[in-house]
Amino acid sequence: MTAPSIILSRPQLGENIGAAARAMANFGLDDLRLVAPRDGWPNEKANHMAVGAAFVNEKARVYQTLEEALGDLNLVYATTARDRGTTKEVLTPEEAAKRLRKAAARGEKTGILFGNERAGLDNDEISLTDAVIMVPTSEFTSLNLGQTVLVTAYEWLRAGDCTPPARIEHGPYHRKPTREEMFGLFDHLERELAESGFLYPPAKYDTMVRAIRATVHRAKLTYQEVQTLRGMIVALVKNKHRVRK
Amino acid sequence: MTAPSIILSRPQLGENIGAAARAMANFGLDDLRLVAPRDGWPNEKANHMAVGAAFVNEKARVYQTLEEALGDLNLVYATTARDRGTTKEVLTPEEAAKRLRKAAARGEKTGILFGNERAGLDNDEISLTDAVIMVPTSEFTSLNLGQTVLVTAYEWLRAGDCTPPARIEHGPYHRKPTREEMFGLFDHLERELAESGFLYPPAKYDTMVRAIRATVHRAKLTYQEVQTLRGMIVALVKNKHRVRK
Repeated sequence: MTAPSIILSRPQLGENIGAAARAMANFGLDDLRLVAPRDGWPNEKANHMAVGAAFVNEKARVYQTLEEALGDLNLVYATTARDRGTTKEVLTPEEAAKRLRKAAARGEKTGILFGNERAGLDNDEISLTDAVIMVPTSEFTSLNLGQTVLVTAYEWLRAGDCTPPARIEHGPYHRKPTREEMFGLFDHLERELAESGFLYPPAKYDTMVRAIRATVHRAKLTYQEVQTLRGMIVALVKNKHRVRK
Repeated sequence: MTAPSIILSRPQLGENIGAAARAMANFGLDDLRLVAPRDGWPNEKANHMAVGAAFVNEKARVYQTLEEALGDLNLVYATTARDRGTTKEVLTPEEAAKRLRKAAARGEKTGILFGNERAGLDNDEISLTDAVIMVPTSEFTSLNLGQTVLVTAYEWLRAGDCTPPARIEHGPYHRKPTREEMFGLFDHLERELAESGFLYPPAKYDTMVRAIRATVHRAKLTYQEVQTLRGMIVALVKNKHRVRK
């Protein structure tokens, strides 16, 4: 699936172009289009800021007009920081990313348009696009160009991302223990606690044991950690006997 | 609901601290904690980079050790760029934000910990936290400190954000037309098209009319746009008669 092109209209500072390139590369975008960049192109400051993402700058293309830069695209969204009082549809970055993915899956060429650092996009520029993206913010709204590219590019990747929301890394030593191994830990721990007099008075024995087991379960131990805990119990008990001798 | 504290461990460049502050302010976070900032604090470059978010820098607190900086918090996540081979739980920024919101709703104090620009967090630092956040990226992974703060802060706001995914701005002139107003537009357009000979041959009349109505509906016109379109029809028809005279 082809990721959206990023079109920067009349960008000023090379640093900001470089920050945009770096944001793009992190999230799998690599087609950067520059409309009349103020300080010319290529730009050394842009490469310095892009760090390892200079390959995005290297293949960037420069256009004299916005119409040329958008010409081959099928679906283009414009980013703005404020409501414009027009009747264009306004999308969250998340919704925009979903629609861009669907369009790309149909084989359409897509793009996201960003205005320059000083003034953003004007209404003429916005009128060439399908809809508007606004990043939701707190009352304080002052995202710069690189930050806005970052949020939209991040949402593009996230819309197609299969990373599980939460996971535990499982190496060879990190497999889940079997029930039998858990029961072995419980037996060992409860036997030593009983011998030490911790599980007292007898009337509370069952309640205490259940509470300890709940604590242990909540930790979602790996096999390796079960072994380590048993080693700790052995060590603590040994030490106690040594002190008492 | 109290937003998470942002804790920067041994940050180096003031520019990056300022970028973090600006990212925070945009998404409603304002408690910045600095552990042993290399170039001291306050830092002029940080304020320059924060632009309007300098208020975050002004109330930032400096700590000598990470333990002190985290001391009063109940839930802390650490951000890392790579798997660490530990058995800590690894969360996406989205999942982390949801859990932080739930904890904050219970009255817990939360925080997100970031390592320094050069080396990130070490395993000792990570061991003081509840779980790890990894930002999903493409194969190219090189988010800087400010960018990582931006993504996690953005997800915090998004997790509690009620912005509709897609909306049309509705001013007083932007109300939806009534059916009657839409039918008026159809009648007007179809009458003029019929008179001009466009709806030809008669066998295709109904099909053509239905196709035109579908096009018009898909545009989701406002009342104002319906009026404008009728004006355009009047103007086009008038012009034609004038030319023919």
